[in-house]
Amino acid sequence: MKYGIIGTGAIGGFYGGMLAHAGCDVHFLLNTDYDEVKANGLQIDSCDGNFHLDKVNVYHEVSDMPVCDVVLVCLKTVKNNLLESMLPNIVHERTLVVLIQNGIGLESDLQSVFPHLHIAAGLAFICSSKIGKGHICHQCYGRLTLAPFGHEYLDVTAQVVGDFIRSGVQAFTAEYHIARWKKAVWNVPFNGLTVALNTTTDKLLANRDIEKQIHNIMLEVIHAANRINPRKPIDDSFADEMIQQTKVMTPYSPSMKLDFDNRREMEIHYLYERPFMDAARAGYDMKRVKFLSDELRFIQHSYIM
Amino acid sequence: MKYGIIGTGAIGGFYGGMLAHAGCDVHFLLNTDYDEVKANGLQIDSCDGNFHLDKVNVYHEVSDMPVCDVVLVCLKTVKNNLLESMLPNIVHERTLVVLIQNGIGLESDLQSVFPHLHIAAGLAFICSSKIGKGHICHQCYGRLTLAPFGHEYLDVTAQVVGDFIRSGVQAFTAEYHIARWKKAVWNVPFNGLTVALNTTTDKLLANRDIEKQIHNIMLEVIHAANRINPRKPIDDSFADEMIQQTKVMTPYSPSMKLDFDNRREMEIHYLYERPFMDAARAGYDMKRVKFLSDELRFIQHSYIM
Repeated sequence: MKYGIIGTGAIGGFYGGMLAHAGCDVHFLLNTDYDEVKANGLQIDSCDGNFHLDKVNVYHEVSDMPVCDVVLVCLKTVKNNLLESMLPNIVHERTLVVLIQNGIGLESDLQSVFPHLHIAAGLAFICSSKIGKGHICHQCYGRLTLAPFGHEYLDVTAQVVGDFIRSGVQAFTAEYHIARWKKAVWNVPFNGLTVALNTTTDKLLANRDIEKQIHNIMLEVIHAANRINPRKPIDDSFADEMIQQTKVMTPYSPSMKLDFDNRREMEIHYLYERPFMDAARAGYDMKRVKFLSDELRFIQHSYIM
Repeated sequence: MKYGIIGTGAIGGFYGGMLAHAGCDVHFLLNTDYDEVKANGLQIDSCDGNFHLDKVNVYHEVSDMPVCDVVLVCLKTVKNNLLESMLPNIVHERTLVVLIQNGIGLESDLQSVFPHLHIAAGLAFICSSKIGKGHICHQCYGRLTLAPFGHEYLDVTAQVVGDFIRSGVQAFTAEYHIARWKKAVWNVPFNGLTVALNTTTDKLLANRDIEKQIHNIMLEVIHAANRINPRKPIDDSFADEMIQQTKVMTPYSPSMKLDFDNRREMEIHYLYERPFMDAARAGYDMKRVKFLSDELRFIQHSYIM
């Protein structure tokens, strides 16, 4: 199986690197780090053991890449508009495209551009960051969940899970709707509030009233999910579970906070505006999510753009 | 009539200064500026004409002040706990105490400490700031509304209004509940959001979604007011009116933003927590106000205290 990695940063560099390190046939698309990785390979500092990939298949243009059986999209979602021109270069009719990204509605938007494409969500539970050109630091966790979108499980899905497990990544499959929204339960409060209040997860949870608001926001996400898909409801207790898990995590800056700190565009659309719109269409008003969302747009406009 | 001014800053310095300038018998309590004003008097730079008061009755200790017929309390509300020990020094049984302060519940709290005290709310529509020791800058507006709390209009109220009018201050009387809550309709969204988003009123209103949230918050304040006092409801259109008026104002930093910028304690209790609690007791949940309130407490804890 040929793997294509679109976006070789904290996520794509780590998961693609793990596959390549285990001997899979992996092809990386790079932008700013192309020359460095072409010359010197990819360095992965990982809590599970460091390694260096001396020879890496790297490309600066997607048109130079081979057609792949699996494409892992690891871009920031603010760049997903690029997929329309990129993907036709590297997919055949049975390629599986896995969006290892945060947010709600990503797969549906991509499917509307490519009605016959096989798409899956990739939910990464990982602390990883790019700390230099071609240099990834994987601090902890790393679990990856694949959730097929709008189609039955394909053989290729099982093969991908198998390749990841053989590469040392804990990989699973899950039901799409539940998987995406459960991830949002954590992402929505913690990404936005660490930016709006310029802080870290531990400091948010050290404040009783803010912990309550995080819980309120989580319930808004759960209730939106359940309104949109009532057949498989997420239980309210999942919010408590997420808060308890976060309390025992080390102090953490979510990806949106890192984007904010580095004055990069934040993933406001797919993490806030899109779930709000989907919920509104289903008749549910995510009041606090919308308030936080509007604050984030204002902050981005003031400080970044 | 003898006037006592508790807190000689942007508000007390201006209104007390106007009365003194017109020849009223005014006695000022000062803290940090005492020596300066004792030596050099009080300077008022006003859009309506500058003036200097050479000889001012100033006091550093409330126990040195004479008993007054009218006391204008112009402290920040975070210092209202001082009133319990201060007021008995300067009131007789018919003294009118006017709280020229922002927020909800101030008069009720003071009345519970002094059950027989005559109290009125003072609503100042003014842009004024202290720009140096004993030096007040009154930029614009200046209207003052007196609203008797829990008692009929007293003769003294009419006298105070008359003294202000003769001093060049537009003064009125109004019904207490309506006056306090209508002021809160403007104060609650603009004070908190200029702090949370570190900006000014004009920039808030230049963002469509934030303008909508300001409108939402104003409606929460109006609906809380109407739930608490259904007999004299405030119309929803008052929110539109306030937004339109603010759009034609010059860019403005509300008092809480000035407190934040100068790392002073913010008036979160009486502007946010108290209206939220009063509304909750009446069965109305001010969701957005509570969210903003919790953000402000977090911000104050992070940056100021």
